[in-house]
This record gives sequence, C-alpha cells and structure tokens, in this order.
Amino acid sequence: MTTIREARREDAGLILELVRGLAEYERAPDAVQVTEAELLRDGFPEAGGQRYFETILAEEEGGEASGFALFHPVYSTWRGRAMHLEDLFVRPQFRGRGIGRALLEKVAAIAVERECVILFWHVLDWNTPAIEFYKTLGAEPLEEWRRMRVRDEALRALAGKAPSEAK
Amino acid sequence: MTTIREARREDAGLILELVRGLAEYERAPDAVQVTEAELLRDGFPEAGGQRYFETILAEEEGGEASGFALFHPVYSTWRGRAMHLEDLFVRPQFRGRGIGRALLEKVAAIAVERECVILFWHVLDWNTPAIEFYKTLGAEPLEEWRRMRVRDEALRALAGKAPSEAK
Repeated sequence: MTTIREARREDAGLILELVRGLAEYERAPDAVQVTEAELLRDGFPEAGGQRYFETILAEEEGGEASGFALFHPVYSTWRGRAMHLEDLFVRPQFRGRGIGRALLEKVAAIAVERECVILFWHVLDWNTPAIEFYKTLGAEPLEEWRRMRVRDEALRALAGKAPSEAK
Repeated sequence: MTTIREARREDAGLILELVRGLAEYERAPDAVQVTEAELLRDGFPEAGGQRYFETILAEEEGGEASGFALFHPVYSTWRGRAMHLEDLFVRPQFRGRGIGRALLEKVAAIAVERECVILFWHVLDWNTPAIEFYKTLGAEPLEEWRRMRVRDEALRALAGKAPSEAK
C-alpha cells in the first residue's frame, strides 16, 4: 500500500537522492549541481522566505520512498493560474504499480484546489512510453513550442547590459 | 528615449491589452481568456496573497507603452533558482529600436539579482527571427524537450482520481 504525503524539511536529502535518480534515467547523471542546502532553502524556507517549489513523496509500507513529484505555480497570460510539474519520478523497482499516476493525480488535485486551470510539464521527445502514458491521462504535447534557456555566464553578460535607468 | 519601469496595479488593463497584442502576433488572437480582474489579483495581490507574476513596461516619451515583459520564478532541480519569461512583446510600430532587447536584459538583471542561474522561456518553432535573435544573446534552444499540458475538464478529471488518503 502506497501513501502520498507532503515532504518536510528533514526530507531534503531524500529529495536530492530522488532528483539524482531521475537525472540518471534522463541520461544526464552529472547534471545535478543543486545541493541539499539549496533544496532546503528554496523548498522549505524560513518564515518570510520565498518558497520556490513543493514536493510530495510516495512511501511504501515500512516508510521507504518509492517516488516523488516536485511542482510550483506558473502563469498563463492566456488562461491565468497554472501549475508546473518539474519532476515526476518512480524508482525503477517500484514501477508498474500506478505510483506515477497517483503522484500526478495528487498534483492535479492540488492544482485544481488552487484554482489553476492548466498543469504543464516537460518531457524528452525520445521518451515515447512517457508521452503515450501522459496522453492516456488527457495530456496534449505542445508540438510548436521550444524551450529556450540562457544561463550562467551568458545570463550574467545579458544582465550586465540592462539599461541603468531601468535598474 | 525609452524607459523601463515596474508595472503597478493601475496598469492591469494595459497589460491585458499588451497580452492580446502578443497573442495576435502568435496567431492565436482568441486564446486570451484571462480577465483584467485576474491579472490584478494574480500580479498585484493584496497583502498576504500570492504573486504569480511580475511585469515590466517599456514606455516612450509622453508615456505611451511600447512593450512589456512578464515573468515569474521557476525551479530547476538540476541547478536551483531560475526565472521564466512568460511574455516579451514590443508593439509593431516600436520595433527595431532595441526595446525587446532592453526588456530582456532587464529581466536577466532581475533574475541575477535574485540569485537565479537560468532564464527560461518558450518560443514558437516557426518564429525563426526570434530564435535567431535570442541566439545572438547567448540563448540555447532545448531541442529535446516538449511541453505537455492537461487543462480544464481533463485536469479536473485527473484531479478527481487522486487517492483520497492523499488529499
């Protein structure tokens, strides 16, 4: 029997472990540079701090974590409040039991509770099993859109050019 | 001379007008269902309310708005704090003066100020001029990723299936 619960501060190390598990599956095992301290700061802020994300955990009897979902609000200027699912992952040995679906359903329920009209996420275009699974849940791939990114040195260079009267 | 400033509550109607201008350019003139009241609630919340997005406006001498950028925080579990640029738009009659670039630079500056390491946005795959422009600023298209979406009735159906012990 799987239960799903909100993550707590003491789960930050476990969340990092699950994030790394997902990155391995996504063929990017070395991409995870985030630290436990950053996950703690940004997911479980002190009073007054900004919360960047929320996490739910799937747990098996005995308390072992079998999967997680990590999400945060986004905004659609066409439709209004929306939720973005950043990570959804079930550990390989726990697959095929409906845990991924239960996590996704729970995130959908939280989104609806908060008056969000859309739930978004990203999927790798070669991950056909995931895409097909998501379609059975009523999801649509937005084929026309590409995600762009500017980061690190390039982001700082761009920032450095901002007009000073605009700062 | 263009100046860039943060939008205020009284700009909500103007923001909606600019959002509609962008939707027309994106060949989706009827896609904008958001209302001025929602933009006001979600962008300029009362004390204690959650702010879903921020907006900056480009203004010409005389006070006419020539463009806008609308953005909000997101999270990369690989890298940490990030910013998402939801909308960037310059009214057609004001193009070619560097206003889009100035808006993007300002958003980058705000992102860096808040310790974000990445700025993300989405672009339509047929919008080659925009993609080429973004590349000159150091941006990379994430070719492998597709955006998925579940919304409205399908989202509510998914939410309704969430395991009750998880609610």
